[in-house]
Amino acid sequence: MIVLGIDPGSHVTGWGVIESSGSKLRHLASGTIVAQGESLAARLVCIAAGLEAVVARFSPQAVAVENIFHAKNSRSALQLGHARGVALLVAARSGSTIHEYNPTQIKQSLTGRGRADKMQVQKMVQMVLGPLGTLALDASDALAAAICHTEMARSGAAIASAERGPAA
Amino acid sequence: MIVLGIDPGSHVTGWGVIESSGSKLRHLASGTIVAQGESLAARLVCIAAGLEAVVARFSPQAVAVENIFHAKNSRSALQLGHARGVALLVAARSGSTIHEYNPTQIKQSLTGRGRADKMQVQKMVQMVLGPLGTLALDASDALAAAICHTEMARSGAAIASAERGPAA
Repeated sequence: MIVLGIDPGSHVTGWGVIESSGSKLRHLASGTIVAQGESLAARLVCIAAGLEAVVARFSPQAVAVENIFHAKNSRSALQLGHARGVALLVAARSGSTIHEYNPTQIKQSLTGRGRADKMQVQKMVQMVLGPLGTLALDASDALAAAICHTEMARSGAAIASAERGPAA
Repeated sequence: MIVLGIDPGSHVTGWGVIESSGSKLRHLASGTIVAQGESLAARLVCIAAGLEAVVARFSPQAVAVENIFHAKNSRSALQLGHARGVALLVAARSGSTIHEYNPTQIKQSLTGRGRADKMQVQKMVQMVLGPLGTLALDASDALAAAICHTEMARSGAAIASAERGPAA
Protein backbone atom coordinates (compact mmCIF):
# COMPACT_ATOMS: atom_id res chain seq x y z
CA MET A 1 0.00 0.00 0.00
CA ILE A 2 1.31 3.42 -0.95
CA VAL A 3 0.32 6.18 1.45
CA LEU A 4 0.69 9.91 0.95
CA GLY A 5 0.80 12.10 4.03
CA ILE A 6 0.10 15.81 3.67
CA ASP A 7 0.78 18.64 6.11
CA PRO A 8 -1.04 21.56 4.48
CA GLY A 9 -0.04 25.18 4.98
CA SER A 10 -0.85 28.37 3.09
CA HIS A 11 2.88 29.06 2.62
CA VAL A 12 4.58 25.67 2.99
CA THR A 13 2.86 22.34 2.45
CA GLY A 14 4.75 19.22 3.48
CA TRP A 15 4.24 15.87 1.78
CA GLY A 16 5.65 12.40 2.19
CA VAL A 17 5.06 9.09 0.43
CA ILE A 18 5.71 5.72 2.05
CA GLU A 19 5.14 2.15 1.01
CA SER A 20 3.94 -0.37 3.56
CA SER A 21 4.23 -4.09 3.04
CA GLY A 22 3.21 -6.10 6.07
CA SER A 23 4.93 -4.43 8.98
CA LYS A 24 7.69 -3.03 6.74
CA LEU A 25 7.65 0.65 5.89
CA ARG A 26 9.74 2.24 3.18
CA HIS A 27 10.25 5.91 2.43
CA LEU A 28 9.61 6.62 -1.26
CA ALA A 29 9.86 10.40 -1.39
CA SER A 30 9.06 13.50 0.59
CA GLY A 31 9.41 17.24 0.31
CA THR A 32 7.72 20.57 0.64
CA ILE A 33 5.72 22.73 -1.72
CA VAL A 34 6.69 26.34 -1.11
CA ALA A 35 3.73 28.29 -2.46
CA GLN A 36 4.83 31.23 -4.55
CA GLY A 37 2.66 34.25 -5.28
CA GLU A 38 1.57 37.34 -3.44
CA SER A 39 -2.10 36.49 -3.39
CA LEU A 40 -3.57 33.58 -1.51
CA ALA A 41 -5.29 32.45 -4.73
CA ALA A 42 -1.97 32.23 -6.57
CA ARG A 43 -0.47 30.25 -3.69
CA LEU A 44 -3.41 27.84 -3.73
CA VAL A 45 -2.76 27.18 -7.43
CA CYS A 46 0.86 26.27 -6.52
CA ILE A 47 -0.26 23.94 -3.75
CA ALA A 48 -2.78 22.20 -6.01
CA ALA A 49 -0.29 21.81 -8.86
CA GLY A 50 2.40 20.50 -6.50
CA LEU A 51 0.12 17.93 -4.89
CA GLU A 52 -1.31 16.88 -8.25
CA ALA A 53 2.23 16.16 -9.44
CA VAL A 54 2.93 14.04 -6.34
CA VAL A 55 -0.33 12.13 -6.76
CA ALA A 56 0.34 11.53 -10.46
CA ARG A 57 3.85 10.26 -9.71
CA PHE A 58 3.01 7.87 -6.87
CA SER A 59 -0.69 7.01 -7.28
CA PRO A 60 -1.23 6.58 -3.53
CA GLN A 61 -4.06 4.29 -2.43
CA ALA A 62 -4.53 6.31 0.74
CA VAL A 63 -3.97 9.92 1.76
CA ALA A 64 -3.48 10.87 5.41
CA VAL A 65 -4.02 14.45 6.53
CA GLU A 66 -3.79 15.86 10.01
CA ASN A 67 -7.13 16.97 11.37
CA ILE A 68 -7.13 20.42 12.84
CA PHE A 69 -9.57 21.76 15.35
CA HIS A 70 -7.86 24.78 16.71
CA ALA A 71 -5.75 27.58 15.40
CA LYS A 72 -4.19 30.60 17.06
CA ASN A 73 -7.16 32.66 15.95
CA SER A 74 -9.92 32.56 13.36
CA ARG A 75 -7.72 34.40 10.86
CA SER A 76 -5.03 31.69 10.91
CA ALA A 77 -7.75 29.04 10.89
CA LEU A 78 -9.18 30.60 7.71
CA GLN A 79 -5.78 30.73 5.97
CA LEU A 80 -4.96 27.17 6.96
CA GLY A 81 -8.44 26.06 5.94
CA HIS A 82 -7.87 27.41 2.41
CA ALA A 83 -4.73 25.31 1.96
CA ARG A 84 -6.26 22.26 3.61
CA GLY A 85 -9.35 22.53 1.39
CA VAL A 86 -7.20 22.47 -1.72
CA ALA A 87 -5.23 19.48 -0.38
CA LEU A 88 -8.41 17.52 0.37
CA LEU A 89 -9.79 18.39 -3.07
CA VAL A 90 -6.71 17.06 -4.86
CA ALA A 91 -6.70 13.93 -2.68
CA ALA A 92 -10.41 13.26 -3.22
CA ARG A 93 -10.13 13.76 -6.97
CA SER A 94 -7.26 11.28 -7.15
CA GLY A 95 -9.62 8.53 -6.04
CA SER A 96 -7.49 7.72 -2.97
CA THR A 97 -9.22 7.07 0.32
CA ILE A 98 -8.82 10.05 2.65
CA HIS A 99 -8.01 9.58 6.32
CA GLU A 100 -7.90 12.33 8.86
CA TYR A 101 -6.07 11.89 12.15
CA ASN A 102 -5.91 14.13 15.17
CA PRO A 103 -2.51 15.57 16.05
CA THR A 104 -2.50 13.55 19.28
CA GLN A 105 -3.22 10.30 17.38
CA ILE A 106 -0.31 10.98 15.05
CA LYS A 107 2.10 11.81 17.86
CA GLN A 108 0.86 8.86 19.90
CA SER A 109 1.47 6.44 17.05
CA LEU A 110 4.99 7.80 16.47
CA THR A 111 6.31 8.62 19.89
CA GLY A 112 3.93 6.73 22.17
CA ARG A 113 2.87 10.02 23.69
CA GLY A 114 0.18 12.50 22.61
CA ARG A 115 2.54 15.39 23.14
CA ALA A 116 5.73 15.81 21.18
CA ASP A 117 7.33 18.71 19.38
CA LYS A 118 8.11 18.69 15.68
CA MET A 119 11.76 17.80 16.29
CA GLN A 120 10.82 14.74 18.33
CA VAL A 121 8.38 13.70 15.61
CA GLN A 122 11.08 14.10 12.99
CA LYS A 123 13.49 11.99 15.04
CA MET A 124 10.93 9.20 15.36
CA VAL A 125 10.08 9.38 11.66
CA GLN A 126 13.77 8.78 10.88
CA MET A 127 13.92 5.93 13.37
CA VAL A 128 10.95 4.27 11.67
CA LEU A 129 11.91 4.93 8.05
CA GLY A 130 15.68 5.02 8.41
CA PRO A 131 17.91 8.08 8.07
CA LEU A 132 16.57 10.55 5.51
CA GLY A 133 19.22 13.25 5.73
CA THR A 134 18.06 16.81 5.94
CA LEU A 135 14.32 16.82 6.18
CA ALA A 136 12.05 19.85 6.46
CA LEU A 137 9.83 19.73 9.55
CA ASP A 138 6.74 20.04 7.34
CA ALA A 139 7.89 17.00 5.36
CA SER A 140 8.47 14.92 8.50
CA ASP A 141 5.04 15.96 9.82
CA ALA A 142 3.54 14.72 6.55
CA LEU A 143 5.47 11.43 6.80
CA ALA A 144 4.26 11.09 10.40
CA ALA A 145 0.64 11.31 9.22
CA ALA A 146 1.34 8.63 6.60
CA ILE A 147 3.05 6.35 9.15
CA CYS A 148 0.14 6.86 11.55
CA HIS A 149 -2.24 5.72 8.83
CA THR A 150 -0.31 2.51 8.16
CA GLU A 151 -0.37 1.73 11.90
CA MET A 152 -4.08 2.44 12.12
CA ALA A 153 -4.78 0.39 9.02
CA ARG A 154 -2.69 -2.49 10.36
CA SER A 155 -4.41 -2.44 13.72
CA GLY A 156 -7.76 -2.31 11.94
CA ALA A 157 -8.47 1.01 13.59
CA ALA A 158 -8.47 3.11 10.45
CA ILE A 159 -10.94 5.87 11.05
CA ALA A 160 -14.35 4.48 10.21
CA SER A 161 -15.34 7.65 8.42
CA ALA A 162 -12.72 7.15 5.72
CA GLU A 163 -14.41 7.35 2.38
CA ARG A 164 -13.49 6.74 -1.18
CA GLY A 165 -13.58 10.02 -3.10
CA PRO A 166 -16.19 10.45 -5.85
CA ALA A 167 -13.51 10.28 -8.55
CA ALA A 168 -12.91 6.62 -7.72
CA MET B 1 -17.45 42.60 -18.73
CA ILE B 2 -18.79 39.40 -17.26
CA VAL B 3 -18.39 39.10 -13.51
CA LEU B 4 -18.91 36.02 -11.36
CA GLY B 5 -19.65 36.54 -7.69
CA ILE B 6 -19.13 33.64 -5.28
CA ASP B 7 -20.38 33.22 -1.72
CA PRO B 8 -18.51 30.10 -0.58
CA GLY B 9 -19.80 27.77 2.09
CA SER B 10 -18.92 24.21 3.06
CA HIS B 11 -22.56 23.14 2.62
CA VAL B 12 -24.07 25.75 0.28
CA THR B 13 -22.08 27.90 -2.13
CA GLY B 14 -23.90 30.76 -3.83
CA TRP B 15 -22.91 32.03 -7.26
CA GLY B 16 -24.15 34.76 -9.57
CA VAL B 17 -23.08 35.99 -12.99
CA ILE B 18 -23.77 39.49 -14.26
CA GLU B 19 -22.81 41.41 -17.35
CA SER B 20 -21.87 45.05 -17.08
CA SER B 21 -21.82 47.37 -20.03
CA GLY B 22 -21.16 50.98 -19.10
CA SER B 23 -23.46 51.65 -16.16
CA LYS B 24 -25.88 48.92 -17.23
CA LEU B 25 -25.97 45.68 -15.32
CA ARG B 26 -27.69 42.54 -16.48
CA HIS B 27 -28.31 39.32 -14.59
CA LEU B 28 -27.13 36.32 -16.61
CA ALA B 29 -27.60 33.47 -14.14
CA SER B 30 -27.32 32.62 -10.50
CA GLY B 31 -27.86 29.72 -8.19
CA THR B 32 -26.47 27.62 -5.41
CA ILE B 33 -24.27 24.56 -5.28
CA VAL B 34 -25.54 22.30 -2.53
CA ALA B 35 -22.54 20.17 -1.67
CA GLN B 36 -23.47 16.52 -1.30
CA GLY B 37 -21.39 13.99 0.57
CA GLU B 38 -20.82 13.06 4.17
CA SER B 39 -17.16 13.96 4.24
CA LEU B 40 -15.83 17.45 3.79
CA ALA B 41 -13.54 16.19 1.02
CA ALA B 42 -16.51 14.86 -0.96
CA ARG B 43 -18.32 18.18 -0.52
CA LEU B 44 -15.26 20.08 -1.73
CA VAL B 45 -15.26 17.98 -4.91
CA CYS B 46 -18.92 19.02 -5.46
CA ILE B 47 -18.11 22.69 -4.93
CA ALA B 48 -15.15 22.57 -7.32
CA ALA B 49 -17.13 20.74 -10.02
CA GLY B 50 -20.06 23.13 -9.67
CA LEU B 51 -17.92 26.24 -9.92
CA GLU B 52 -15.89 24.79 -12.79
CA ALA B 53 -19.15 24.27 -14.70
CA VAL B 54 -20.20 27.89 -14.08
CA VAL B 55 -16.80 29.20 -15.15
CA ALA B 56 -16.83 27.04 -18.29
CA ARG B 57 -20.32 28.24 -19.20
CA PHE B 58 -19.81 32.00 -18.69
CA SER B 59 -16.03 32.58 -18.97
CA PRO B 60 -16.08 35.49 -16.53
CA GLN B 61 -13.32 38.09 -16.83
CA ALA B 62 -13.50 38.82 -13.13
CA VAL B 63 -14.45 36.88 -10.04
CA ALA B 64 -15.57 38.66 -6.87
CA VAL B 65 -15.45 36.87 -3.52
CA GLU B 66 -16.32 38.19 -0.12
CA ASN B 67 -13.33 38.55 2.12
CA ILE B 68 -13.78 37.06 5.53
CA PHE B 69 -11.87 37.99 8.62
CA HIS B 70 -13.95 36.61 11.40
CA ALA B 71 -16.01 33.54 12.06
CA LYS B 72 -17.99 32.40 15.06
CA ASN B 73 -15.02 30.32 16.14
CA SER B 74 -11.89 28.80 14.70
CA ARG B 75 -13.78 25.60 13.83
CA SER B 76 -16.25 27.41 11.58
CA ALA B 77 -13.40 29.50 10.17
CA LEU B 78 -11.59 26.31 9.22
CA GLN B 79 -14.67 24.79 7.52
CA LEU B 80 -15.41 28.00 5.64
CA GLY B 81 -11.74 28.32 4.72
CA HIS B 82 -11.82 24.88 3.05
CA ALA B 83 -14.71 25.91 0.78
CA ARG B 84 -13.27 29.34 0.11
CA GLY B 85 -9.89 27.83 -0.78
CA VAL B 86 -11.51 25.60 -3.37
CA ALA B 87 -13.47 28.55 -4.80
CA LEU B 88 -10.32 30.70 -5.10
CA LEU B 89 -8.47 27.80 -6.72
CA VAL B 90 -11.14 27.34 -9.40
CA ALA B 91 -11.29 31.09 -9.99
CA ALA B 92 -7.51 31.46 -10.25
CA ARG B 93 -7.21 28.50 -12.61
CA SER B 94 -9.85 29.99 -14.90
CA GLY B 95 -7.54 32.91 -15.61
CA SER B 96 -10.07 35.46 -14.33
CA THR B 97 -8.86 38.30 -12.15
CA ILE B 98 -9.82 37.72 -8.54
CA HIS B 99 -11.17 40.52 -6.39
CA GLU B 100 -11.86 40.25 -2.70
CA TYR B 101 -14.15 42.70 -0.97
CA ASN B 102 -14.94 43.14 2.68
CA PRO B 103 -18.53 42.48 3.77
CA THR B 104 -18.93 46.16 4.66
CA GLN B 105 -17.72 47.25 1.20
CA ILE B 106 -20.26 44.98 -0.45
CA LYS B 107 -23.13 46.14 1.74
CA GLN B 108 -22.06 49.78 1.37
CA SER B 109 -22.04 49.52 -2.42
CA LEU B 110 -25.49 47.90 -2.47
CA THR B 111 -27.38 49.58 0.31
CA GLY B 112 -25.31 52.68 1.03
CA ARG B 113 -24.70 51.39 4.52
CA GLY B 114 -22.04 49.03 5.88
CA ARG B 115 -24.62 47.12 7.88
CA ALA B 116 -27.48 45.29 6.26
CA ASP B 117 -28.96 41.85 6.72
CA LYS B 118 -29.13 39.26 3.95
CA MET B 119 -32.80 40.11 3.18
CA GLN B 120 -31.98 43.79 2.68
CA VAL B 121 -29.06 42.83 0.44
CA GLN B 122 -31.35 40.56 -1.59
CA LYS B 123 -33.92 43.34 -1.95
CA MET B 124 -31.28 45.77 -3.25
CA VAL B 125 -29.85 43.13 -5.61
CA GLN B 126 -33.31 42.80 -7.17
CA MET B 127 -33.69 46.57 -7.38
CA VAL B 128 -30.39 46.80 -9.25
CA LEU B 129 -30.80 43.77 -11.52
CA GLY B 130 -34.58 43.70 -11.80
CA PRO B 131 -36.91 41.11 -10.30
CA LEU B 132 -35.35 37.66 -10.22
CA GLY B 133 -38.14 35.66 -8.64
CA THR B 134 -37.26 33.30 -5.86
CA LEU B 135 -33.60 33.71 -5.09
CA ALA B 136 -31.62 31.86 -2.45
CA LEU B 137 -29.91 34.19 0.01
CA ASP B 138 -26.54 32.67 -0.85
CA ALA B 139 -27.16 33.43 -4.53
CA SER B 140 -28.09 37.05 -3.81
CA ASP B 141 -25.01 37.43 -1.62
CA ALA B 142 -22.92 36.19 -4.54
CA LEU B 143 -24.65 38.62 -6.94
CA ALA B 144 -24.02 41.41 -4.41
CA ALA B 145 -20.28 40.68 -4.52
CA ALA B 146 -20.38 40.78 -8.33
CA ILE B 147 -22.32 44.08 -8.34
CA CYS B 148 -19.87 45.53 -5.82
CA HIS B 149 -17.01 44.66 -8.16
CA THR B 150 -18.60 46.40 -11.16
CA GLU B 151 -19.08 49.52 -9.01
CA MET B 152 -15.50 49.41 -7.78
CA ALA B 153 -14.18 48.80 -11.29
CA ARG B 154 -16.27 51.70 -12.65
CA SER B 155 -15.10 54.04 -9.93
CA GLY B 156 -11.53 52.92 -10.56
CA ALA B 157 -11.34 51.69 -7.01
CA ALA B 158 -10.99 48.02 -7.82
CA ILE B 159 -8.76 46.60 -5.17
CA ALA B 160 -5.19 47.20 -6.21
CA SER B 161 -4.14 43.76 -5.17
CA ALA B 162 -6.25 42.13 -7.85
CA GLU B 163 -4.08 39.76 -9.79
CA ARG B 164 -4.41 37.69 -12.87
CA GLY B 165 -4.25 34.02 -11.99
CA PRO B 166 -1.30 31.99 -13.25
CA ALA B 167 -3.50 30.11 -15.73
CA ALA B 168 -4.00 33.31 -17.80
